[in-house]
Amino acid sequence: MEIVISNAPFNRAAALSLRQATFVTERGIPRDVEFDDRDTPERLYVVAYQRAELPVGTLRLEPQSDTQMRFGRGCTSQTVRGQGIGSQVLQAGENWATAHGFAVGIIDGELTAKTFYERCGYHVVGEPFTEDGAPVVTLTKNL
Amino acid sequence: MEIVISNAPFNRAAALSLRQATFVTERGIPRDVEFDDRDTPERLYVVAYQRAELPVGTLRLEPQSDTQMRFGRGCTSQTVRGQGIGSQVLQAGENWATAHGFAVGIIDGELTAKTFYERCGYHVVGEPFTEDGAPVVTLTKNL
Repeated sequence: MEIVISNAPFNRAAALSLRQATFVTERGIPRDVEFDDRDTPERLYVVAYQRAELPVGTLRLEPQSDTQMRFGRGCTSQTVRGQGIGSQVLQAGENWATAHGFAVGIIDGELTAKTFYERCGYHVVGEPFTEDGAPVVTLTKNL
Repeated sequence: MEIVISNAPFNRAAALSLRQATFVTERGIPRDVEFDDRDTPERLYVVAYQRAELPVGTLRLEPQSDTQMRFGRGCTSQTVRGQGIGSQVLQAGENWATAHGFAVGIIDGELTAKTFYERCGYHVVGEPFTEDGAPVVTLTKNL
Protein backbone atom coordinates (compact mmCIF):
# COMPACT_ATOMS: atom_id res chain seq x y z
CA MET A 1 0.00 0.00 0.00
CA GLU A 2 1.32 3.41 -1.05
CA ILE A 3 -0.23 6.58 0.35
CA VAL A 4 0.27 9.83 -1.57
CA ILE A 5 -0.68 13.27 -0.23
CA SER A 6 -0.40 15.70 -3.12
CA ASN A 7 -2.14 18.06 -5.50
CA ALA A 8 -0.44 16.39 -8.49
CA PRO A 9 -2.84 15.89 -11.43
CA PHE A 10 -2.63 12.10 -11.17
CA ASN A 11 -3.48 12.15 -7.48
CA ARG A 12 -6.45 14.46 -7.99
CA ALA A 13 -7.69 12.24 -10.84
CA ALA A 14 -7.45 9.19 -8.57
CA ALA A 15 -9.34 10.96 -5.76
CA LEU A 16 -12.08 12.16 -8.09
CA SER A 17 -12.42 8.73 -9.71
CA LEU A 18 -12.92 7.05 -6.32
CA ARG A 19 -15.57 9.62 -5.37
CA GLN A 20 -17.28 9.28 -8.76
CA ALA A 21 -17.55 5.51 -8.25
CA THR A 22 -18.52 5.58 -4.57
CA PHE A 23 -20.60 8.67 -3.99
CA VAL A 24 -22.15 9.31 -7.41
CA THR A 25 -22.45 5.97 -9.24
CA GLU A 26 -22.86 3.69 -6.20
CA ARG A 27 -24.66 5.96 -3.74
CA GLY A 28 -26.54 8.27 -6.09
CA ILE A 29 -25.37 11.62 -4.69
CA PRO A 30 -26.00 14.22 -7.43
CA ARG A 31 -22.84 14.75 -9.50
CA ASP A 32 -22.97 18.54 -9.20
CA VAL A 33 -23.25 18.27 -5.41
CA GLU A 34 -20.40 15.78 -4.96
CA PHE A 35 -17.90 17.78 -7.03
CA ASP A 36 -17.81 21.31 -5.69
CA ASP A 37 -15.72 24.46 -5.82
CA ARG A 38 -13.31 23.07 -3.22
CA ASP A 39 -11.85 20.65 -5.79
CA THR A 40 -9.35 23.28 -6.90
CA PRO A 41 -5.99 22.56 -8.56
CA GLU A 42 -4.26 23.48 -5.28
CA ARG A 43 -6.34 21.10 -3.14
CA LEU A 44 -4.44 18.33 -1.36
CA TYR A 45 -5.86 14.81 -1.51
CA VAL A 46 -4.80 11.76 0.42
CA VAL A 47 -4.94 8.70 -1.84
CA ALA A 48 -4.09 5.09 -1.00
CA TYR A 49 -2.88 2.96 -3.91
CA GLN A 50 -2.94 -0.83 -3.82
CA ARG A 51 -0.69 -0.63 -6.88
CA ALA A 52 0.48 2.53 -8.66
CA GLU A 53 -2.31 2.12 -11.19
CA LEU A 54 -5.03 1.14 -8.68
CA PRO A 55 -6.22 3.81 -6.20
CA VAL A 56 -8.46 2.36 -3.48
CA GLY A 57 -9.06 5.04 -0.83
CA THR A 58 -9.13 8.81 -0.57
CA LEU A 59 -9.71 11.81 1.69
CA ARG A 60 -9.77 15.57 1.03
CA LEU A 61 -7.81 17.96 3.25
CA GLU A 62 -9.87 21.10 3.99
CA PRO A 63 -8.12 23.54 6.34
CA GLN A 64 -10.72 25.51 8.34
CA SER A 65 -8.18 27.75 10.10
CA ASP A 66 -4.50 27.66 11.01
CA THR A 67 -5.20 25.01 13.63
CA GLN A 68 -8.33 23.18 12.47
CA MET A 69 -8.27 20.65 9.65
CA ARG A 70 -11.46 19.19 8.25
CA PHE A 71 -11.22 15.76 6.63
CA GLY A 72 -13.83 15.45 3.91
CA ARG A 73 -15.08 13.25 1.09
CA GLY A 74 -13.48 10.11 2.50
CA CYS A 75 -14.26 6.86 0.73
CA THR A 76 -12.85 3.43 -0.07
CA SER A 77 -13.38 1.28 -3.17
CA GLN A 78 -16.30 -1.09 -2.76
CA THR A 79 -14.13 -4.13 -3.51
CA VAL A 80 -11.66 -3.53 -0.67
CA ARG A 81 -13.86 -2.27 2.18
CA GLY A 82 -13.44 -3.71 5.65
CA GLN A 83 -9.66 -4.06 5.29
CA GLY A 84 -8.68 -1.01 7.32
CA ILE A 85 -7.85 1.19 4.34
CA GLY A 86 -10.13 4.00 5.49
CA SER A 87 -8.41 4.26 8.86
CA GLN A 88 -4.95 4.19 7.23
CA VAL A 89 -5.96 7.02 4.92
CA LEU A 90 -7.37 9.04 7.82
CA GLN A 91 -4.25 8.38 9.90
CA ALA A 92 -2.08 9.63 7.03
CA GLY A 93 -4.20 12.77 6.78
CA GLU A 94 -3.90 13.34 10.53
CA ASN A 95 -0.13 12.87 10.40
CA TRP A 96 0.12 15.44 7.60
CA ALA A 97 -2.06 17.85 9.58
CA THR A 98 -0.05 17.62 12.81
CA ALA A 99 3.22 17.99 10.87
CA HIS A 100 1.82 21.22 9.46
CA GLY A 101 0.67 22.73 12.76
CA PHE A 102 -2.96 21.64 12.88
CA ALA A 103 -4.16 20.68 16.37
CA VAL A 104 -7.78 19.66 15.80
CA GLY A 105 -9.38 17.32 13.28
CA ILE A 106 -13.01 17.85 12.23
CA ILE A 107 -15.22 15.43 10.32
CA ASP A 108 -18.80 15.84 9.20
CA GLY A 109 -19.48 12.13 9.06
CA GLU A 110 -22.54 10.23 7.98
CA LEU A 111 -24.36 8.79 10.97
CA THR A 112 -23.74 5.29 9.61
CA ALA A 113 -19.96 5.90 9.90
CA LYS A 114 -20.06 7.34 13.43
CA THR A 115 -18.77 4.16 15.06
CA PHE A 116 -15.87 4.01 12.61
CA TYR A 117 -14.81 7.57 13.44
CA GLU A 118 -15.20 6.96 17.17
CA ARG A 119 -12.83 4.01 16.87
CA CYS A 120 -10.40 6.45 15.22
CA GLY A 121 -10.55 8.67 18.32
CA TYR A 122 -13.23 11.17 17.29
CA HIS A 123 -16.04 12.45 19.53
CA VAL A 124 -19.44 13.67 18.44
CA VAL A 125 -20.17 17.36 19.02
CA GLY A 126 -23.68 18.74 18.68
CA GLU A 127 -26.78 17.20 17.20
CA PRO A 128 -27.14 15.25 13.93
CA PHE A 129 -28.18 17.29 10.90
CA THR A 130 -29.07 16.54 7.30
CA GLU A 131 -26.59 17.13 4.48
CA ASP A 132 -27.30 16.20 0.86
CA GLY A 133 -30.20 14.09 2.13
CA ALA A 134 -28.22 11.99 4.61
CA PRO A 135 -28.07 12.31 8.42
CA VAL A 136 -24.68 13.65 9.44
CA VAL A 137 -22.87 14.30 12.72
CA THR A 138 -19.87 16.50 13.39
CA LEU A 139 -16.98 14.81 15.17
CA THR A 140 -13.70 16.23 16.40
CA LYS A 141 -10.39 14.93 17.70
CA ASN A 142 -7.40 16.57 19.32
CA LEU A 143 -4.58 15.52 17.02
CA MET B 1 -27.77 8.70 -23.38
CA GLU B 2 -26.90 12.25 -22.35
CA ILE B 3 -23.81 13.96 -23.77
CA VAL B 4 -22.35 16.91 -21.86
CA ILE B 5 -19.60 19.19 -23.20
CA SER B 6 -18.43 21.34 -20.33
CA ASN B 7 -15.65 22.29 -17.97
CA ALA B 8 -17.98 21.90 -14.97
CA PRO B 9 -16.31 20.13 -12.04
CA PHE B 10 -18.66 17.14 -12.27
CA ASN B 11 -17.93 16.68 -15.97
CA ARG B 12 -14.18 16.88 -15.45
CA ALA B 13 -14.43 14.35 -12.61
CA ALA B 14 -16.38 11.99 -14.86
CA ALA B 15 -13.82 12.35 -17.67
CA LEU B 16 -10.89 11.76 -15.34
CA SER B 17 -12.57 8.76 -13.71
CA LEU B 18 -13.12 7.09 -17.10
CA ARG B 19 -9.48 7.67 -18.05
CA GLN B 20 -8.28 6.42 -14.66
CA ALA B 21 -10.22 3.18 -15.15
CA THR B 22 -9.39 2.67 -18.84
CA PHE B 23 -5.90 4.01 -19.41
CA VAL B 24 -4.27 3.65 -16.00
CA THR B 25 -5.94 0.75 -14.17
CA GLU B 26 -6.91 -1.38 -17.19
CA ARG B 27 -4.13 -0.53 -19.66
CA GLY B 28 -1.27 0.29 -17.31
CA ILE B 29 -0.32 3.70 -18.73
CA PRO B 30 1.70 5.47 -15.99
CA ARG B 31 -0.58 7.72 -13.92
CA ASP B 32 1.71 10.75 -14.25
CA VAL B 33 1.77 10.36 -18.04
CA GLU B 34 -1.99 9.95 -18.47
CA PHE B 35 -2.89 13.02 -16.40
CA ASP B 36 -0.94 15.97 -17.76
CA ASP B 37 -0.86 19.75 -17.65
CA ARG B 38 -3.63 19.98 -20.23
CA ASP B 39 -6.21 18.85 -17.67
CA THR B 40 -6.74 22.44 -16.57
CA PRO B 41 -9.91 23.78 -14.90
CA GLU B 42 -10.80 25.50 -18.20
CA ARG B 43 -10.47 22.35 -20.33
CA LEU B 44 -13.62 21.17 -22.09
CA TYR B 45 -14.46 17.48 -21.93
CA VAL B 46 -17.10 15.58 -23.85
CA VAL B 47 -18.73 13.00 -21.59
CA ALA B 48 -21.50 10.53 -22.41
CA TYR B 49 -23.71 9.49 -19.49
CA GLN B 50 -25.83 6.35 -19.57
CA ARG B 51 -27.56 7.81 -16.51
CA ALA B 52 -26.71 11.09 -14.76
CA GLU B 53 -24.64 9.16 -12.22
CA LEU B 54 -22.98 6.79 -14.72
CA PRO B 55 -20.48 8.27 -17.21
CA VAL B 56 -19.48 5.79 -19.92
CA GLY B 57 -17.46 7.63 -22.57
CA THR B 58 -15.23 10.69 -22.85
CA LEU B 59 -13.05 12.81 -25.11
CA ARG B 60 -10.84 15.85 -24.47
CA LEU B 61 -11.07 18.94 -26.69
CA GLU B 62 -7.59 20.32 -27.44
CA PRO B 63 -7.62 23.31 -29.80
CA GLN B 64 -4.36 23.44 -31.80
CA SER B 65 -5.15 26.71 -33.59
CA ASP B 66 -8.24 28.75 -34.48
CA THR B 67 -9.19 26.16 -37.09
CA GLN B 68 -7.67 22.86 -35.95
CA MET B 69 -9.18 20.84 -33.11
CA ARG B 70 -7.39 17.84 -31.70
CA PHE B 71 -9.55 15.17 -30.07
CA GLY B 72 -7.58 13.43 -27.36
CA ARG B 73 -7.81 10.91 -24.52
CA GLY B 74 -10.92 9.25 -25.91
CA CYS B 75 -12.15 6.14 -24.13
CA THR B 76 -15.27 4.14 -23.34
CA SER B 77 -16.07 2.08 -20.23
CA GLN B 78 -15.03 -1.52 -20.63
CA THR B 79 -18.55 -2.78 -19.87
CA VAL B 80 -20.22 -0.87 -22.71
CA ARG B 81 -17.73 -1.11 -25.56
CA GLY B 82 -18.90 -2.05 -29.03
CA GLN B 83 -22.20 -0.19 -28.66
CA GLY B 84 -21.27 2.88 -30.71
CA ILE B 85 -20.68 5.16 -27.73
CA GLY B 86 -17.18 6.14 -28.91
CA SER B 87 -18.45 7.35 -32.27
CA GLN B 88 -21.33 9.27 -30.64
CA VAL B 89 -18.87 11.02 -28.34
CA LEU B 90 -16.57 11.86 -31.25
CA GLN B 91 -19.51 13.12 -33.32
CA ALA B 92 -20.56 15.39 -30.46
CA GLY B 93 -17.02 16.73 -30.21
CA GLU B 94 -16.94 17.37 -33.96
CA ASN B 95 -20.29 19.16 -33.83
CA TRP B 96 -19.03 21.41 -31.04
CA ALA B 97 -15.87 22.11 -33.04
CA THR B 98 -17.66 23.08 -36.26
CA ALA B 99 -20.11 25.25 -34.32
CA HIS B 100 -17.09 27.11 -32.91
CA GLY B 101 -15.31 27.68 -36.22
CA PHE B 102 -12.95 24.70 -36.34
CA ALA B 103 -12.54 23.21 -39.81
CA VAL B 104 -10.15 20.30 -39.25
CA GLY B 105 -10.18 17.47 -36.73
CA ILE B 106 -6.91 15.83 -35.68
CA ILE B 107 -6.48 12.59 -33.76
CA ASP B 108 -3.30 10.88 -32.64
CA GLY B 109 -4.88 7.45 -32.49
CA GLU B 110 -3.47 4.14 -31.40
CA LEU B 111 -2.80 1.91 -34.39
CA THR B 112 -5.32 -0.60 -33.02
CA ALA B 113 -8.05 2.06 -33.31
CA LYS B 114 -7.14 3.17 -36.86
CA THR B 115 -10.05 1.31 -38.47
CA PHE B 116 -12.49 2.85 -36.02
CA TYR B 117 -11.33 6.37 -36.85
CA GLU B 118 -11.38 5.64 -40.59
CA ARG B 119 -15.01 4.58 -40.27
CA CYS B 120 -15.59 7.98 -38.63
CA GLY B 121 -14.20 9.70 -41.73
CA TYR B 122 -10.56 10.22 -40.72
CA HIS B 123 -7.54 9.64 -42.96
CA VAL B 124 -4.05 8.69 -41.88
CA VAL B 125 -1.35 11.29 -42.48
CA GLY B 126 2.32 10.40 -42.14
CA GLU B 127 3.98 7.36 -40.65
CA PRO B 128 3.17 5.58 -37.39
CA PHE B 129 5.20 6.66 -34.36
CA THR B 130 5.51 5.55 -30.77
CA GLU B 131 3.83 7.47 -27.93
CA ASP B 132 3.90 6.31 -24.32
CA GLY B 133 5.06 2.92 -25.58
CA ALA B 134 2.22 2.33 -28.04
CA PRO B 135 2.27 2.67 -31.87
CA VAL B 136 0.25 5.72 -32.89
CA VAL B 137 -0.87 7.27 -36.18
CA THR B 138 -2.06 10.80 -36.83
CA LEU B 139 -5.40 11.06 -38.61
CA THR B 140 -7.28 14.11 -39.85
CA LYS B 141 -10.75 14.94 -41.14
CA ASN B 142 -12.25 17.99 -42.77
CA LEU B 143 -15.15 18.73 -40.46
